[in-house]
Amino acid sequence: MTAEIQRTPRSRVRRLPQRGSYDRAVINQVLDEGIVAHVGFVHEGSPFVIPMGYARDGDRLLLHGSSASRLMRLLAAGTEAAVTVTLLDALVLARSYFHHSMNYRSVVVLGRTVEVAEQNEKREALDVLLSRLVPGRHGDARPTNDLELRATLVAQIPIEEATAKLRTGPPADDDEDLALPYWAGLVPVNTTFGPPEPAPDLRDGIEPPAYARNYGRRPTDG
Amino acid sequence: MTAEIQRTPRSRVRRLPQRGSYDRAVINQVLDEGIVAHVGFVHEGSPFVIPMGYARDGDRLLLHGSSASRLMRLLAAGTEAAVTVTLLDALVLARSYFHHSMNYRSVVVLGRTVEVAEQNEKREALDVLLSRLVPGRHGDARPTNDLELRATLVAQIPIEEATAKLRTGPPADDDEDLALPYWAGLVPVNTTFGPPEPAPDLRDGIEPPAYARNYGRRPTDG
Repeated sequence: MTAEIQRTPRSRVRRLPQRGSYDRAVINQVLDEGIVAHVGFVHEGSPFVIPMGYARDGDRLLLHGSSASRLMRLLAAGTEAAVTVTLLDALVLARSYFHHSMNYRSVVVLGRTVEVAEQNEKREALDVLLSRLVPGRHGDARPTNDLELRATLVAQIPIEEATAKLRTGPPADDDEDLALPYWAGLVPVNTTFGPPEPAPDLRDGIEPPAYARNYGRRPTDG
Repeated sequence: MTAEIQRTPRSRVRRLPQRGSYDRAVINQVLDEGIVAHVGFVHEGSPFVIPMGYARDGDRLLLHGSSASRLMRLLAAGTEAAVTVTLLDALVLARSYFHHSMNYRSVVVLGRTVEVAEQNEKREALDVLLSRLVPGRHGDARPTNDLELRATLVAQIPIEEATAKLRTGPPADDDEDLALPYWAGLVPVNTTFGPPEPAPDLRDGIEPPAYARNYGRRPTDG
């Protein structure tokens, strides 16, 4: 579980290396807890950053969207991308303005996107996306039909050139500031889920399933 | 309050235009509620996406970081950037795999970064950054000294070419799926704060201030 991801010149954490990690377990934990990734790419010379749902499947990240989306067509055609997932854990209040900070965990995955085009692989990838977004939901809704499958594009990016960056712990004040009469510490940031809100047109007598009532982002061992 | 942001070919929302908004009030609300932005830029031909704290100050976004950071030097030197802020509101569970979605609000700001170099403007920008991150904190910690000011770079990006994108409401199932025996609805995603955790080396007798105990991201009118 201490397997290390390869370091490349562009993914190496240059500043504050103590905040950097190439540990695959750390990287996977962040990617499995997150729900939204920010996907960056270059189009006609300009940078773009778009939020997308995603899923980690072993050593790849899966992205999907409509076949009608310019973005998805670009990702499916294959493009250099940066996929970043960030979890905010706390605001860090220091005795000095200067040392205010945030505790966070983030992962940047750099690489080239590739389409998952073959029909069975595509269907499996969509199943993984649903299973990771809402564990337990797969098998408890109508599966994707052929028309819907054609209306969807799936792309993957390998988790090879990847870096985790984190800050944890209390404020890092200068020694000479410790005696100042200011409060210092953390304001934790928590993400919670629920309670489920039924659709207005839900059939009578269908209770929210346990996976919706107890929704959470538990780390996996995958 | 219904002032509209200019639309440009690259910021226009092409697909699902009903999800797009150029309303400045909507854009400001998202930017004021968010804490972390994902900043995209191109370096040596490759896209990068980095999470950063930020603040909206009128019609500009402020970013800051260490003078020793390659990223901040790049942003201060002036570069094309995409700054994206995303708020996740709910997971959308539909009767079909296909219509699963997320409710979210996001803003993409495209433009060229410019350094805030003049000392007084830079100090004011840092004051705004602190005041927006932790309203009430300004005046209740040690101000930035000249050495710290030199160790910091501040960059701004104009909120001119900007788009909000949102999804709200219940799942959008196909009519023929409404009779299926599956639960459908929303699993709300909530961000909560606190309770404050004092630093281990906090002086005795300093209670957490109200702005830390009651921390929240209230919309502003600014």
